[in-house]
Amino acid sequence: MKVAVYRKAHFNAAHRLFNPSWSDQHNQSVFGLCNNPNFHGHNYELEVKVVGEINPETGFVIDLNLLKTIIYEEIELSFDHKNLNVEVPEFANLIPTAENICVVIWQKLRKKIDPDLELMVRLYETPRNFVEFPA
Amino acid sequence: MKVAVYRKAHFNAAHRLFNPSWSDQHNQSVFGLCNNPNFHGHNYELEVKVVGEINPETGFVIDLNLLKTIIYEEIELSFDHKNLNVEVPEFANLIPTAENICVVIWQKLRKKIDPDLELMVRLYETPRNFVEFPA
Amino acid sequence: MKVAVYRKAHFNAAHRLFNPSWSDQHNQSVFGLCNNPNFHGHNYELEVKVVGEINPETGFVIDLNLLKTIIYEEIELSFDHKNLNVEVPEFANLIPTAENICVVIWQKLRKKIDPDLELMVRLYETPRNFVEFPA
Amino acid sequence: MKVAVYRKAHFNAAHRLFNPSWSDQHNQSVFGLCNNPNFHGHNYELEVKVVGEINPETGFVIDLNLLKTIIYEEIELSFDHKNLNVEVPEFANLIPTAENICVVIWQKLRKKIDPDLELMVRLYETPRNFVEFPA
Amino acid sequence: MKVAVYRKAHFNAAHRLFNPSWSDQHNQSVFGLCNNPNFHGHNYELEVKVVGEINPETGFVIDLNLLKTIIYEEIELSFDHKNLNVEVPEFANLIPTAENICVVIWQKLRKKIDPDLELMVRLYETPRNFVEFPA
Amino acid sequence: MKVAVYRKAHFNAAHRLFNPSWSDQHNQSVFGLCNNPNFHGHNYELEVKVVGEINPETGFVIDLNLLKTIIYEEIELSFDHKNLNVEVPEFANLIPTAENICVVIWQKLRKKIDPDLELMVRLYETPRNFVEFPA
Repeated sequence: MKVAVYRKAHFNAAHRLFNPSWSDQHNQSVFGLCNNPNFHGHNYELEVKVVGEINPETGFVIDLNLLKTIIYEEIELSFDHKNLNVEVPEFANLIPTAENICVVIWQKLRKKIDPDLELMVRLYETPRNFVEFPA
Repeated sequence: MKVAVYRKAHFNAAHRLFNPSWSDQHNQSVFGLCNNPNFHGHNYELEVKVVGEINPETGFVIDLNLLKTIIYEEIELSFDHKNLNVEVPEFANLIPTAENICVVIWQKLRKKIDPDLELMVRLYETPRNFVEFPA
Repeated sequence: MKVAVYRKAHFNAAHRLFNPSWSDQHNQSVFGLCNNPNFHGHNYELEVKVVGEINPETGFVIDLNLLKTIIYEEIELSFDHKNLNVEVPEFANLIPTAENICVVIWQKLRKKIDPDLELMVRLYETPRNFVEFPA
Repeated sequence: MKVAVYRKAHFNAAHRLFNPSWSDQHNQSVFGLCNNPNFHGHNYELEVKVVGEINPETGFVIDLNLLKTIIYEEIELSFDHKNLNVEVPEFANLIPTAENICVVIWQKLRKKIDPDLELMVRLYETPRNFVEFPA
Repeated sequence: MKVAVYRKAHFNAAHRLFNPSWSDQHNQSVFGLCNNPNFHGHNYELEVKVVGEINPETGFVIDLNLLKTIIYEEIELSFDHKNLNVEVPEFANLIPTAENICVVIWQKLRKKIDPDLELMVRLYETPRNFVEFPA
Repeated sequence: MKVAVYRKAHFNAAHRLFNPSWSDQHNQSVFGLCNNPNFHGHNYELEVKVVGEINPETGFVIDLNLLKTIIYEEIELSFDHKNLNVEVPEFANLIPTAENICVVIWQKLRKKIDPDLELMVRLYETPRNFVEFPA
């Protein structure tokens, strides 16, 4: 009898999409405005889903204050008000598309959440564009 | 060729999280502000999902007016503007966490909805915290 | 390692729910206000989900500008500011319920999206009523 | 010490924008897609604002249940699931633009609300387009 | 050249609407479900508006971190997860309607915000019911 | 009989808050995380309000397609996917706080909108922080 619990958080960051192994022209044709070398940015909305059994003693799947703290320490402290390309080591050699940011967030949270609990991450880059991992 | 149909509803209620078999101190350390003995409350947003085949005569999976009436009679009449701990019998011996409220709502609706249709319930306790059953 | 990518779009349209093989009375009892012969309408919100592997060269599952263009050409051009019953050929013999509109949108998009990618469509008829295909 | 009280409601309707004293061509150049002779439609969101002193006995500016009933009887019953051009007499000789619908709603509500209370109406035609009267 | 700056916050609370100088019957006829003696509750959303000149050195009307701290200390600490009737002294002799809560919040914030700045408060009791002071 | 018409738009941009005439330390104490020299960014939501009389021939205060085009040409083309500090000349010597961005947008739009119409601009930097000019 598994229940899913969701917690939302957010962070603001700058990024640029480009592939250093490509020509400027090819980067421009693939990434368009997102390839701006001076960066642009987003209000990222993050939705973390944790699935497990209800603990009959607490009525909780996971203590939401614990989940909130994990998200704060693992994600917000490293990503909020940051330049993802320049300041977040995971993107030193990885293009910070919404897809890749979402997988990186999942990997960072996965290490901190009880392995008996399933984990999914949804990331909104804008209200009209968002991604989810695992699908 | 199954389609999912969703209907939203809401109710306002007071509740308190505490486990009567624990000391006050332990309740406070687990439930914190939610353990306030004078209660606090929420605007609960409810999302009911029903899955089935489209009836070719009506183009409906389920008549949404019927679903709206079931939600009103089974959930809103019993939960809206109520104190969940004091006035809703399902929580006489069950802590009214979002997880448990969600499962109780699913159980109440399940009895009233055609067994050929799958049923899922999502419950928002706040815009940032929500749960889903079954996961 | 599959990721889901979502893109939202919208269109405004008029429609009427009725089954021409039924009596007026039966149509009224099943479809109520939605059976108004003069039509009524909605702001439909469309959410398209595409699932696949991340392309390591681009960091994309699908180029969102391509997806946006497909949605525009296949759906918005045909449905936006239209009378679904009168002007959209798919509904000449199909009742334009949210369920049927959702399946028709899925069928139209499916032909244009790489078969290696999974496709799901969610359609909001109002903020409180929405459907999803496949479920 | 005046307080403003707001109540939201909604209705779905079909409409067409055209000026019968103009040529088809001129209607098309001014109203574009909104001039579709087969109609299109919207989920209109209505926000009614009432301003007055707090009654010290009740703590209310206006009983919201009364306001809800007035909105239902004056607006929802006449506009919901209707074709505004064909079925709502106020638009027999008035183009049902958001601006004109908003003023008509204000005029209908004004007659039913205590003249000591100020009244304002905001009408959303889509989430991105809305109007307010009086400005 | 005045600019308005808005900051949103929220709190969850329980309350009951009743006038102790009235009979039970009269309370019931005026306040209905909101008169539940066991309380019910809401997720209150608070919107604080501060109007003033832009400081040319900072580009700010008011430092939003300062405003956030004032709202936290004056309102959230006293109201969040509380029973307004029982635990908030301002409502010992004042019915905690949305109107009265809004005025109380304004009075508490007014003392802490630079008198050269104008102050307005909007309070959402539910997404469909909200109030504003001063109007 | 004046009516207000609103149109929403959005743009994504990077920015940094700092005052070049101050020490690094003073910038840090005033602007905190927003002073990141590598920039961060936002999804800015823009709400443009135009007030005037309804034209009885069209039922419009202003043609919303015209307003949409003005916003696109004056604001979106210059601001979207840009680094405000580096690429938008208005911020060469002006700190791009929400307040200053809002005033700059108003000044750019004011030149393009009929002087008989009043103009107001609201700018959301995040869903919880927003500004309005004139207040």
